Amino acid sequence: MEVFQPDAQTLRGSFHSQLIAQRPTLKAQKLKITLIVVSKTDVSYIKAGIDDYVGRLKHYVDFDIVTIQPKTASSVSPAFVKQQEGQLLLKHLQKADRIVLLDERGRELRSVEFADYLQRQANAAVRHLCFVTGGAYGFADEVYKAAHDKISLSRMTFNHQMVRLFFVEQLYRAFTIINHEKYHNE
Amino acid sequence: MEVFQPDAQTLRGSFHSQLIAQRPTLKAQKLKITLIVVSKTDVSYIKAGIDDYVGRLKHYVDFDIVTIQPKTASSVSPAFVKQQEGQLLLKHLQKADRIVLLDERGRELRSVEFADYLQRQANAAVRHLCFVTGGAYGFADEVYKAAHDKISLSRMTFNHQMVRLFFVEQLYRAFTIINHEKYHNE
Repeated sequence: MEVFQPDAQTLRGSFHSQLIAQRPTLKAQKLKITLIVVSKTDVSYIKAGIDDYVGRLKHYVDFDIVTIQPKTASSVSPAFVKQQEGQLLLKHLQKADRIVLLDERGRELRSVEFADYLQRQANAAVRHLCFVTGGAYGFADEVYKAAHDKISLSRMTFNHQMVRLFFVEQLYRAFTIINHEKYHNE
Repeated sequence: MEVFQPDAQTLRGSFHSQLIAQRPTLKAQKLKITLIVVSKTDVSYIKAGIDDYVGRLKHYVDFDIVTIQPKTASSVSPAFVKQQEGQLLLKHLQKADRIVLLDERGRELRSVEFADYLQRQANAAVRHLCFVTGGAYGFADEVYKAAHDKISLSRMTFNHQMVRLFFVEQLYRAFTIINHEKYHNE
């Protein structure tokens, strides 16, 4: 794909938004991105932050968040919780989906590398890219087996609701990088 | 320092909070922690998240956030912005402070390693641990020179306001790890 790279002067100019509209974007390439999460985001400030970035992402890509909600009693074991979550997760995935786990064991990417990763998925004609975050106890073995890739956002463990906010911000950042927009400073 | 490690059964028992109260904590060791940030946190949901964790941290440690507010016109260069921020930052630091930059070039720690890092600072009789986040363009050379350590929260670049929320969550997580409390799952 030919990438149009306007110089800094052009980017600051009034033509900027027009130029972006003319450039092939991942949206034009029909890539759909889904973030699958376990259990509802119930912390109000995290929800507000996610809503903010989901709104911004609409300009770039067909993006949605799917929430799976396992019915679990607090008395069940972590292993049972993981297994149940895994079964529900797998039900939401189609054979043609590209499944990427957000997982501590995954490889770490810089923001520009993550943008490049998304671009390469689009170039490889992936139609539906599914990022999956685990529940409090991580992923079941079946989910690991079904996954095509694992990406780690940090070596640190973040609260499993907060990680959703980090991810949507990072996804938004990636699209501003792909589209040469002013947001990310290298 | 002798670390008291109750077994899982004890942790679930009603004695838990009493046991924690008896154990030496970083609070008892008089470690003060400050996070120094450049420019006010003005995104309401990030502010709400930070307030949440700052409130929780009060049970463990003397923690505060110091905001430096450079007066800059939008027309000045990134180099000038960094230099001005650097001068203001250094004014807030005392000779005995242990200065740790939250910086992409820093080393990455897992959450348990970060908890261990804090514990070691307290054991080494550090009285004031200052974590510093940079502005949009990073740190001035003078700030790098003054720093004792650099820690990276992620290889990815996060929004410079959001990184504050990530940090306070991570700090809270570290204290729950140090105090053997139920929050972090390995």
